[in-house]
Amino acid sequence: MDPVTASLAELHDRLSSLADGEVADYIPQLASADPRTFGLALVSMSGNCYHAGDTDDLFSIQSVSKPFVYALAVSALGPTEVARRVGAEPSGEAFNAISLEPGTGRPANPMVNAGAIVTTSLVPAADARDRFERIRACLSAFAGRSLDVDEDVYRSEAATGDRNRALAYLMRGAGSLAGDVDETVRTYFRQCSIQVRVADLAVMAATLANGGVNPVTGDRVIEEPVAVRALAVMATCGMYDGAGEWLLRVGLPAKSGVSGGLIACSPARFGIAVHSPPLDRAGNPVRGVLALTELSERFALHLMHQPGRHIATVTEVTTTLDHPSYRARTPAQRAVLDREGHRVVVIRAQGALEFTETEHLLHALRQSAPSPPGWIVLDLDRVTRIALGSAAMLGAALADLVAAGHEIAIAAREPLLDPIGDGPAPWTAFAGREEAVAWGEDRLLATTSEPTG
Amino acid sequence: MDPVTASLAELHDRLSSLADGEVADYIPQLASADPRTFGLALVSMSGNCYHAGDTDDLFSIQSVSKPFVYALAVSALGPTEVARRVGAEPSGEAFNAISLEPGTGRPANPMVNAGAIVTTSLVPAADARDRFERIRACLSAFAGRSLDVDEDVYRSEAATGDRNRALAYLMRGAGSLAGDVDETVRTYFRQCSIQVRVADLAVMAATLANGGVNPVTGDRVIEEPVAVRALAVMATCGMYDGAGEWLLRVGLPAKSGVSGGLIACSPARFGIAVHSPPLDRAGNPVRGVLALTELSERFALHLMHQPGRHIATVTEVTTTLDHPSYRARTPAQRAVLDREGHRVVVIRAQGALEFTETEHLLHALRQSAPSPPGWIVLDLDRVTRIALGSAAMLGAALADLVAAGHEIAIAAREPLLDPIGDGPAPWTAFAGREEAVAWGEDRLLATTSEPTG
Amino acid sequence: MDPVTASLAELHDRLSSLADGEVADYIPQLASADPRTFGLALVSMSGNCYHAGDTDDLFSIQSVSKPFVYALAVSALGPTEVARRVGAEPSGEAFNAISLEPGTGRPANPMVNAGAIVTTSLVPAADARDRFERIRACLSAFAGRSLDVDEDVYRSEAATGDRNRALAYLMRGAGSLAGDVDETVRTYFRQCSIQVRVADLAVMAATLANGGVNPVTGDRVIEEPVAVRALAVMATCGMYDGAGEWLLRVGLPAKSGVSGGLIACSPARFGIAVHSPPLDRAGNPVRGVLALTELSERFALHLMHQPGRHIATVTEVTTTLDHPSYRARTPAQRAVLDREGHRVVVIRAQGALEFTETEHLLHALRQSAPSPPGWIVLDLDRVTRIALGSAAMLGAALADLVAAGHEIAIAAREPLLDPIGDGPAPWTAFAGREEAVAWGEDRLLATTSEPTG
Amino acid sequence: MDPVTASLAELHDRLSSLADGEVADYIPQLASADPRTFGLALVSMSGNCYHAGDTDDLFSIQSVSKPFVYALAVSALGPTEVARRVGAEPSGEAFNAISLEPGTGRPANPMVNAGAIVTTSLVPAADARDRFERIRACLSAFAGRSLDVDEDVYRSEAATGDRNRALAYLMRGAGSLAGDVDETVRTYFRQCSIQVRVADLAVMAATLANGGVNPVTGDRVIEEPVAVRALAVMATCGMYDGAGEWLLRVGLPAKSGVSGGLIACSPARFGIAVHSPPLDRAGNPVRGVLALTELSERFALHLMHQPGRHIATVTEVTTTLDHPSYRARTPAQRAVLDREGHRVVVIRAQGALEFTETEHLLHALRQSAPSPPGWIVLDLDRVTRIALGSAAMLGAALADLVAAGHEIAIAAREPLLDPIGDGPAPWTAFAGREEAVAWGEDRLLATTSEPTG
Repeated sequence: MDPVTASLAELHDRLSSLADGEVADYIPQLASADPRTFGLALVSMSGNCYHAGDTDDLFSIQSVSKPFVYALAVSALGPTEVARRVGAEPSGEAFNAISLEPGTGRPANPMVNAGAIVTTSLVPAADARDRFERIRACLSAFAGRSLDVDEDVYRSEAATGDRNRALAYLMRGAGSLAGDVDETVRTYFRQCSIQVRVADLAVMAATLANGGVNPVTGDRVIEEPVAVRALAVMATCGMYDGAGEWLLRVGLPAKSGVSGGLIACSPARFGIAVHSPPLDRAGNPVRGVLALTELSERFALHLMHQPGRHIATVTEVTTTLDHPSYRARTPAQRAVLDREGHRVVVIRAQGALEFTETEHLLHALRQSAPSPPGWIVLDLDRVTRIALGSAAMLGAALADLVAAGHEIAIAAREPLLDPIGDGPAPWTAFAGREEAVAWGEDRLLATTSEPTG
Repeated sequence: MDPVTASLAELHDRLSSLADGEVADYIPQLASADPRTFGLALVSMSGNCYHAGDTDDLFSIQSVSKPFVYALAVSALGPTEVARRVGAEPSGEAFNAISLEPGTGRPANPMVNAGAIVTTSLVPAADARDRFERIRACLSAFAGRSLDVDEDVYRSEAATGDRNRALAYLMRGAGSLAGDVDETVRTYFRQCSIQVRVADLAVMAATLANGGVNPVTGDRVIEEPVAVRALAVMATCGMYDGAGEWLLRVGLPAKSGVSGGLIACSPARFGIAVHSPPLDRAGNPVRGVLALTELSERFALHLMHQPGRHIATVTEVTTTLDHPSYRARTPAQRAVLDREGHRVVVIRAQGALEFTETEHLLHALRQSAPSPPGWIVLDLDRVTRIALGSAAMLGAALADLVAAGHEIAIAAREPLLDPIGDGPAPWTAFAGREEAVAWGEDRLLATTSEPTG
Repeated sequence: MDPVTASLAELHDRLSSLADGEVADYIPQLASADPRTFGLALVSMSGNCYHAGDTDDLFSIQSVSKPFVYALAVSALGPTEVARRVGAEPSGEAFNAISLEPGTGRPANPMVNAGAIVTTSLVPAADARDRFERIRACLSAFAGRSLDVDEDVYRSEAATGDRNRALAYLMRGAGSLAGDVDETVRTYFRQCSIQVRVADLAVMAATLANGGVNPVTGDRVIEEPVAVRALAVMATCGMYDGAGEWLLRVGLPAKSGVSGGLIACSPARFGIAVHSPPLDRAGNPVRGVLALTELSERFALHLMHQPGRHIATVTEVTTTLDHPSYRARTPAQRAVLDREGHRVVVIRAQGALEFTETEHLLHALRQSAPSPPGWIVLDLDRVTRIALGSAAMLGAALADLVAAGHEIAIAAREPLLDPIGDGPAPWTAFAGREEAVAWGEDRLLATTSEPTG
Repeated sequence: MDPVTASLAELHDRLSSLADGEVADYIPQLASADPRTFGLALVSMSGNCYHAGDTDDLFSIQSVSKPFVYALAVSALGPTEVARRVGAEPSGEAFNAISLEPGTGRPANPMVNAGAIVTTSLVPAADARDRFERIRACLSAFAGRSLDVDEDVYRSEAATGDRNRALAYLMRGAGSLAGDVDETVRTYFRQCSIQVRVADLAVMAATLANGGVNPVTGDRVIEEPVAVRALAVMATCGMYDGAGEWLLRVGLPAKSGVSGGLIACSPARFGIAVHSPPLDRAGNPVRGVLALTELSERFALHLMHQPGRHIATVTEVTTTLDHPSYRARTPAQRAVLDREGHRVVVIRAQGALEFTETEHLLHALRQSAPSPPGWIVLDLDRVTRIALGSAAMLGAALADLVAAGHEIAIAAREPLLDPIGDGPAPWTAFAGREEAVAWGEDRLLATTSEPTG
């Protein structure tokens, strides 16, 4: 058994004996759930799935559907239009709270029922049937397999959903919900009645954590800024009236459901899901809350704990020409280096260049630039990604150095260019000389120098 | 001008012309602030400081002191004891809200005045004078220089602080505040009257972002878990009643003060501070909010945006003996490799090994392990850090492989051992053979194999 | 013009020019009301009707129906059962507030929409049609003429009544409303759409003020305790969130409606109604509020102002036989009085004998009783009514006097016996002697003495 | 034993065995109260005092002082100024609620602690000592004897009064309380610590019920409109968060205190007080609430139950000259009557003439006036009082009759003139003829006719 699975299994075994909490009983389909059912699943950013316990059980997704349908609505309408209809503040109230924003009638956030009903209603569609199909298709894309409705659950939800109908009528009366109330509420009930397994939820969570790309199927389900938005709302509003305590102790965006589902997302790390029907008084699954709390502490997953970020971006600054990685392959290169003697400054960076790493690199560039101006080799061979804003910063800094009289050569792997997206590569801002000097086989991509004869 | 400074300067110039907001006027010392004052400062994890605009102005720290004194109290008493006295939920109310938790009398969180007064009272001290000195010393350590009180501000605060006195009496009546009310409130007023410059606030914010180590002085001010806790509370409660919207749009833990100060922390990236007295209706500095919103968007600083994390941990899996980095230097090594033919599997990883990277690496190990069992070289030369939990996972996985019959050699740089802290190095879990085989000059640290010959 | 009409006319003329307030506009039928419309009507306990201004206008009764349907429900189910379903506390909130009592789901009181909907639902009936017919019949009995529905108003109310539907679903979800929500809400809308003239409302108010008997038709519509209950609820809850200020300044139970109707009841004095569509921000008719405030002040109508009660109950205590009203008509009487000399004590009372008047009379009896025991004449000729509790008190006191040796004669008019209702006359407790002596023509009804001779 | 005492004694005996409720224990002086202590006292409008149970116990008045100090403040500053500083709405909250009106900072009403503290602060005085003396003097005047402070209670209240201090600081911070907070709160604590017996409270309550005149001492303590105001505030706010239910069931203005005191006022009937330390969860004395509920039901004391008012004002309308009470005593009178034959209309009224009785009388006048115009005798001999507004109505109606050609003679007793106060007698509006004709001995006061002969 691999260590991840072993961790999940250990948690499963230890927490299985817990008898706290009550299974939701407002409809027979939930009341009949076995309180002993307990499954955990974790899906990594590379799509690996780990699980422990009861993972074959099918259960209705309930409120765990909310962040995904929110993401669907934001994708379809844009964040501004959605924000006009539903807020993003923790309500400090229960999931079925009825307080609407004075003046606008907006529900507090898309994680409480009122906000989720509005969100469902915002999904553009020809009619109610089409709207539900889009929702089902979206959740299926998040899960990586086609999901279906538990019709028994749906019928029971529809039969007992007076409070949700009340919320919908309240909002239509307040002008924050449009359209046919009964249809909207029924679509919402169908959405909540979609059947999942705990591993489905883990894949769904991992897709949000992965910036919107399903790590198992590789399909992009939503754009990255939409995933960021959904995670942010989960962070402050996903755990109902205990959001602050949850973020303090667990530090992960999460969402629970009345059927015992609970997901948490560790951005760029993994998605995790737990299924265990007994709920605490706040409506969160008892074992799920404990499992995530322990996992977060044991593996230091707290969102505010980012020590891994604090790596040495600049790994090496040398001023010797004897650097083993940079050897002139052609006479022309040789001539260039010879002309400079041993005063070539080589700056070698690694990792991803986001804002702070770029700041670090530029600081090193300024500190290390030779005086008088001379040759600088910027080795980005181990750099895995350059963010768009960082590319602009890097371009500006390199242009300044060139303007100051430096000659700069950049070594980088080809794949580095991809993540930059649609923006220009950093060196295009200052490049433009007619001839590039190739260093090594595949390393030196560009140079600002004009090689001497 | 470097690109970071240029960004701050551009923001400063563009937002300077904004005339929105009102300068706080409840005491003369605040009312007399020049509404045009506008300064920005950013301090990176390596202690570099960037700034723009009016950075010489001294102003009272006011509520920006709250997360730091909270950190001081948690350091002194531990999180459990502090949580017993003050909650961590966003109140959805103004900074001076009076609602206390039914039953316990706890204020909602340490970022509202009531919670901050309790927090101040919790700092262990011989008397009120000693308590304030500890607070002043702590804030000074965060700022990296000795800070003093603006006595005029203090006297005015003390003269007009009826509502804060009311909060304190309410809490003592409810049993959540002990001791002399007048002394506690006066200590709190002195704390709020400490004078800072905008760069001081940026260093203080950077210290929280840096896990508690002041990046300029290098001194550890608080432990990392305490910094995580302070950041988490800032994330949900720092911007008063707009916490959800702030986390949605800006995505950074932040804290504002009535004198126009505003800090934000990007964990493991930087701390930033703005000073601009005109406040919006929620009590946050108008220009500060706009500046941080733009910075966050432009440089993709949102806490939920972690693409840089998603780097390829495993950069190379080869099964050839011809790998250029691993060459037998001695006959014994040669003999080992010859015995295996070309079937040595080399797995090369890079970056920090936290939970998810370790998961990725272990997955690759399992996928690539030769069958029948053979030689595996795990090259951690480019790995910058191994988290404690990850070390345990790695140790367990390697032990499994050894048990299955594999021979494993690990290459790592010495410094890699340091960040592991007080735990055992991952290979100690499975090592123990009598003789280690040295690969290359300084690379191969340990091997499980018994060398032949 | 009589003085009452003159007062109403003067108020009408003076307040007509007021242009404050806004006509309700959520349905076209209300929005089209002429803001200049202004009518007043007052109906006395003897059924006299006074009016001024626009009294021919028909308008929908709206919320003014609430106290009457509440009275109907209490009549049908009893106060306990109704109290189990709807509270009686002022909500401090608007008419369409949604807060329900935790635990029970009860709406705050029957004067807010939620409580009125429950109240409507409580009227026992075979079906919705029958339920509405009972309500219509009841309101008609209160008004003294058959009332009908304005079908246009009803259709508009039904089309726009989302918030009321929401309230109903909320309550059914909370268990405080049973039955078909749509039917109940539609019955409520029909009830609100019943058409009235301002004089109808004045008769309805007068019927409540008159203890449940319509003073025009003479029909008892509800029992007196039910009327008391309806008036009490109007006093604390009838004017929405300004109940305290209203009771302080005007001091009369009242109820307003969105179409501009406003009634007030002065118990045992009169009912008054105003119709004027422009409403203030609390939803009460601007001119109606001012008119009632002025009338209350001018005519000292405040419920707490009861100087008329404080009359001298005991008007005369004499010990002379020469009292002009009591002259022996027969020799036997003459002999009785002669036997006693001039020591007959005559106590003469007037007005209604409720608790406090009876206390006063009994106190006088004790103070004046001759010593040694002798003859007492209790002259109740000017007493207009004896309350049931007072009859018991009087009987007990007289029995004590007889036991102490006194001889007592009571003079009373026959009609005095009627109001005592089903209880025994006070003297039956101590009477029983075989022969009654007639004093004067029709005055002396009973005596405990055995006449001599 | 008289029937009133007997009723109180019966209640005392039956409710004594109740063991429900908890004695307040926040200070030792309250905690040590014997839970079995139970006393009742009732004081009538004529100053008679009835009592049962433990009536010798001295206890601190606590919150029962509030309506009396409110009356003192209104007397001193007028209702408008007091209303500017404290509201009059039921708060729906506990006695120590902290919610203040947004914008003004006004506390909800003078019956909750916050409002009572403001009220105390409003009493005009040279200093805090003087302010308390005025309060003590006022409460003493209400009680009819000099009251003193229990200094032990005062010291304990002052030592534990954090919440009240908090309320005071909150209000000063909000601008609704001026002056020194500590002094104001101490004055309030002294006010609450004044010692009373249950009979004192009954006299105090009776003074409010009696329009401000102490019925025992005969002294006017406050003006009648101030008493009306205090009663109105007690009706909606006196029983804390159960005001509506209390008014529904008991129907009397009331006020309770934490030491077990409870008063209720039946306007123009009596004041009643109960002392019994065990309190229910709302803070009202358990036995007191039950005793008043039973008394109200048994004796029909509900404020909305006013059947005694509905007496026949017009007792007799005759058109015969043979009326026994009106006999010409002089030849001139004889001549007048002879001239008219037997067509003199005699209208005889009784009781107090307030608005509705006057309306009734005027209606009878219009109905009975002879046609063609002739003689009308208005016999007010049994009328006990004419309200000021009624005098104006009566004057206007009589003037109309005179203008129409009627000759009117009024018979009234002299004392009738007194209650009219400073306004003109009703007949002065139409009188002015040179000569008045005297009817009977002391009855006919004025006539509009010019006597013949």
